[in-house]
Amino acid sequence: MSTTESSTIETPVIETQRERTDLPLVVMPTVIPTMLEPLSDCLPLLHDLARVRFYTDFTLDEDTVVERIHDADAVIVIGLHITDRILERVSGHVRCFAFGGTGVASYINLPKTRELGIRVCNVVHYGDHAVAEHAFALIMELSKHVGLLDRDMREGQWEGIDGLDLYERTIGLAGFGGIGQTMARIAQGFGMRILVWNSHLHADQAARFDAQPVDDLGDLFAQSDVVSLHLPLTGDTAGIVTAKELDRLRPGSIIVNTARAEVIAPGALAARLQRGDILAGLDVFDHEPLPEDDPLRHVPGLIMTPHVAWRTPGANRNLTKQVVQSLAAFYRGERMNVVE
Amino acid sequence: MSTTESSTIETPVIETQRERTDLPLVVMPTVIPTMLEPLSDCLPLLHDLARVRFYTDFTLDEDTVVERIHDADAVIVIGLHITDRILERVSGHVRCFAFGGTGVASYINLPKTRELGIRVCNVVHYGDHAVAEHAFALIMELSKHVGLLDRDMREGQWEGIDGLDLYERTIGLAGFGGIGQTMARIAQGFGMRILVWNSHLHADQAARFDAQPVDDLGDLFAQSDVVSLHLPLTGDTAGIVTAKELDRLRPGSIIVNTARAEVIAPGALAARLQRGDILAGLDVFDHEPLPEDDPLRHVPGLIMTPHVAWRTPGANRNLTKQVVQSLAAFYRGERMNVVE
Repeated sequence: MSTTESSTIETPVIETQRERTDLPLVVMPTVIPTMLEPLSDCLPLLHDLARVRFYTDFTLDEDTVVERIHDADAVIVIGLHITDRILERVSGHVRCFAFGGTGVASYINLPKTRELGIRVCNVVHYGDHAVAEHAFALIMELSKHVGLLDRDMREGQWEGIDGLDLYERTIGLAGFGGIGQTMARIAQGFGMRILVWNSHLHADQAARFDAQPVDDLGDLFAQSDVVSLHLPLTGDTAGIVTAKELDRLRPGSIIVNTARAEVIAPGALAARLQRGDILAGLDVFDHEPLPEDDPLRHVPGLIMTPHVAWRTPGANRNLTKQVVQSLAAFYRGERMNVVE
Repeated sequence: MSTTESSTIETPVIETQRERTDLPLVVMPTVIPTMLEPLSDCLPLLHDLARVRFYTDFTLDEDTVVERIHDADAVIVIGLHITDRILERVSGHVRCFAFGGTGVASYINLPKTRELGIRVCNVVHYGDHAVAEHAFALIMELSKHVGLLDRDMREGQWEGIDGLDLYERTIGLAGFGGIGQTMARIAQGFGMRILVWNSHLHADQAARFDAQPVDDLGDLFAQSDVVSLHLPLTGDTAGIVTAKELDRLRPGSIIVNTARAEVIAPGALAARLQRGDILAGLDVFDHEPLPEDDPLRHVPGLIMTPHVAWRTPGANRNLTKQVVQSLAAFYRGERMNVVE
């Protein structure tokens, strides 16, 4: 496969099979740098099916994105929101969006793509380990304060802070798909007691992980030292965690969200944290990037990361492979990871 | 049991059974505040055996310590070095040091206490979970950067950093006592491959943890993505990790030390880190508190915490109970946790 690096300085571009103008064009208008290598590794899967053009700089500027995909047949979407305005401007020629993530509903207006007859593909289970590990990294920082203590030591302090134990404490998992089950495996290693709430949960599925099902989401919050959310964002789960559930968290407990901010009712977590008696770790937010004036910036007990849980070399490999495979399937007239 | 709080403002004191001047006196000359409650909970174990006096403020001043234990029969030592000068000044009356930790050799000159006929007790396995969890907290910060990303976000950044995977990566455990084995259980939960080096290691002991024994310490360093040290400090282990072993760490690998700084040859880790191609997490240092001019303060890739791994509510409960039990044994003419 021929790969040519463009000489244009303003818009760094990589194109494959550029001489094959008979093939449809796949464009990735913006890139997270660490995705580039695993994506390139997968491109042989599109040989003789499509040529591919990558823009190798990172931009979220809407006009730039539209300009870059003006001649695209399919678009690879990673780390970018496809706004309704973008959809309207490219719907004449773009026939497929291949989204590098699971929760595509937060990034593309699916009723609108259905109406326009554009296929949307996502990727599944690519980041079960990456996300579960990041959820535990949030739990660890809230329990052991390594980041905080490192900073304190560099400022000359030595006093330290006592840690919290994970061993023999209770973790409550809301959601028990691939990520929730990976959480349970990790929690088993730490010797934690495991509670699980899920809308459809078979008792024997929980039992395989030494986890105890809890029927009511509020009871899960009341009985856990650590609550971690692993629900997909759907019509049923949007706002499912309300002030009522958050109120049942005991003083000193920890809540972690690496799923989608929208599973928590708007403003409810900031209000609960304002009381100052619980801790929280968030990788997801109602508005991303987190606005300067977001109330979460001013509540106590909160640790935040900028939606990075899914970004590891292993997850990147899984994700990029599925993105390219779903495009190959599209051009072969097959279906893979098609979002209905 | 009667507990009276002294009215002296300068030296806050708690005494039990103070009217029982017929009983020998146990003194704790300095306290880590979070130890106070679990220690108090154990004091009924000394009922009719000894009266106890706690100084409830934290000091490391040698003269203050000597003054506070001038009439002590036994001394509880937590977070304090008993220097040779202290030993000489109190050896006429102190008959027992009850040390709140395992590695007492770093805190009390044992050949000298033997020579003086003073009993030294330590505590064992009290913090297996606390220390192993903290080692993983260091590994997590180096892999997932939660502390760093939280700081970046609060400064208005959103770009993020990719994480490292733990799943399917290799952890090498140097030492396989209670803490090393707890590390293996946690690593199993993360789906890591586990290598173990120990001076005395039975293959079936490793097999119980799905761990693979490695005969040579250098090979362990060369074959692991993450190396974690869990060796006790003894004549055999002092300086056992030399520049030669550290040189075999591959670029990008992580080394964590929550055991004792002295198991690494002096200066060897700072020199290795100076090359800038590995990451390290340290909770222990050759000199504690870490001096302002220590070379470790200026090397890249290092996360530090101030010897706090052992400080959790669970470990505090285990530790304080053993400290008081070993004193009760001393006064009953029995032996418990006596360091030979």
